[in-house]
Amino acid sequence: MPGPAIVLITPQLGENIGMVARAMLNYGCTDLRLVNPRDPWPNKSAIATSAGAVEVINKAKIYFNTCDAISDLKLVFAATARKRDMKKEISSLDDAVREIGNIEHTDTGILFGNEANGLTNDDISLADKILSIPVNENFSSLNLSQAVLLVVYELCGQTFSNVPLDTSGWRDSRASKEELINFFTQLEFALQESGFFHIKEKQPIMVRNIRNIFHRAQLTDQEVRTLRGVISSLENNFSKKD
Amino acid sequence: MPGPAIVLITPQLGENIGMVARAMLNYGCTDLRLVNPRDPWPNKSAIATSAGAVEVINKAKIYFNTCDAISDLKLVFAATARKRDMKKEISSLDDAVREIGNIEHTDTGILFGNEANGLTNDDISLADKILSIPVNENFSSLNLSQAVLLVVYELCGQTFSNVPLDTSGWRDSRASKEELINFFTQLEFALQESGFFHIKEKQPIMVRNIRNIFHRAQLTDQEVRTLRGVISSLENNFSKKD
Repeated sequence: MPGPAIVLITPQLGENIGMVARAMLNYGCTDLRLVNPRDPWPNKSAIATSAGAVEVINKAKIYFNTCDAISDLKLVFAATARKRDMKKEISSLDDAVREIGNIEHTDTGILFGNEANGLTNDDISLADKILSIPVNENFSSLNLSQAVLLVVYELCGQTFSNVPLDTSGWRDSRASKEELINFFTQLEFALQESGFFHIKEKQPIMVRNIRNIFHRAQLTDQEVRTLRGVISSLENNFSKKD
Repeated sequence: MPGPAIVLITPQLGENIGMVARAMLNYGCTDLRLVNPRDPWPNKSAIATSAGAVEVINKAKIYFNTCDAISDLKLVFAATARKRDMKKEISSLDDAVREIGNIEHTDTGILFGNEANGLTNDDISLADKILSIPVNENFSSLNLSQAVLLVVYELCGQTFSNVPLDTSGWRDSRASKEELINFFTQLEFALQESGFFHIKEKQPIMVRNIRNIFHRAQLTDQEVRTLRGVISSLENNFSKKD
């Protein structure tokens, strides 16, 4: 069971539980624990909003109290944004990442309170540390599934790289400098012919500026051929008008 | 209008638009732009799930096409997780944070596609760069509002510190070493009397271990008094039994 365990205490809306399951699986976490959910379990709304995270939904475990839900864990954080007069260490997400280390740690859990009231002080007293999520202090109420998302994203997201986007065809097919220089030669000749460089002393800097524009575009060989066609087409049109 | 602009293209569910507004305001962003939302606007479902982010909902602007929605922007990212055969630079969230700099930049926007299909290639061709969010490649479909949350959290979250939790009463009222040593003296005398140190040569290491336990607990003066009461109570009980 890839941890950390996500422990929802008395969650109310099935929709939120489903969104939590989806967010967990988005970052490879599957250990979902529910303490006294308000509605019966399994829950149709949760299944709908989990968007296919059935692996998490089906393995979710139900507990009657928080003690039972965390009994196998060794390090428990209480995620809360409300002010507490608690003598308990506060971890930032970065602190927690450093302490938990990596996703393989199955002896760690995070407690989340319900939508209406958050965690009780009794629940917090069962945790080793408070986990604090940075948020706009003037609008600090995070949706339950959003709070879980930020925690699993920070704790487990680093093990996932960005989705592999297919750009192999781009970098590999970048135009050679020879192709580029031939294009510049064609372009600059056409500009010369059209009278673009009518202030002679400005020609060198204008040429450099134009070359920089097309260098920044990191053209492929196909794109250089397209642009050469563009120049030829404009030249022909210009010649006809002439 | 604190940016970056969040541009939702043909969003379907009002619930998601509301969750997007809530997530945006959680990180201080208020510039929401909707391109051809499916349902009429303003939208009751959106207002409900925005959980009071009326500032964002009321200021949301509606556009008929993506070009109009981004015309005042200078740097536009297309948030997408699908594979694309596009000749376009891919930014990680970290890259984007470095490039955008800070929340004051009002000339930046992020495009998000709709729930069913994501961004079209035509929309992506209007962006400067693709913004890629790390995610479990085996379950990579992020809910729309979750994707927006991660982007605003990364781009704007650094300007917010953790919610100030009231722990001033803890660190400041930590027990003095004198109070702690008096407690140790009481405890060790009681243990001595009760026969706890029956293996004489182990006494020094056991004393050190116990002192370390209570040092790690970082006790306040009130907590030291509580523990002294605990020892006295146990001593009395022990004496009575004796």
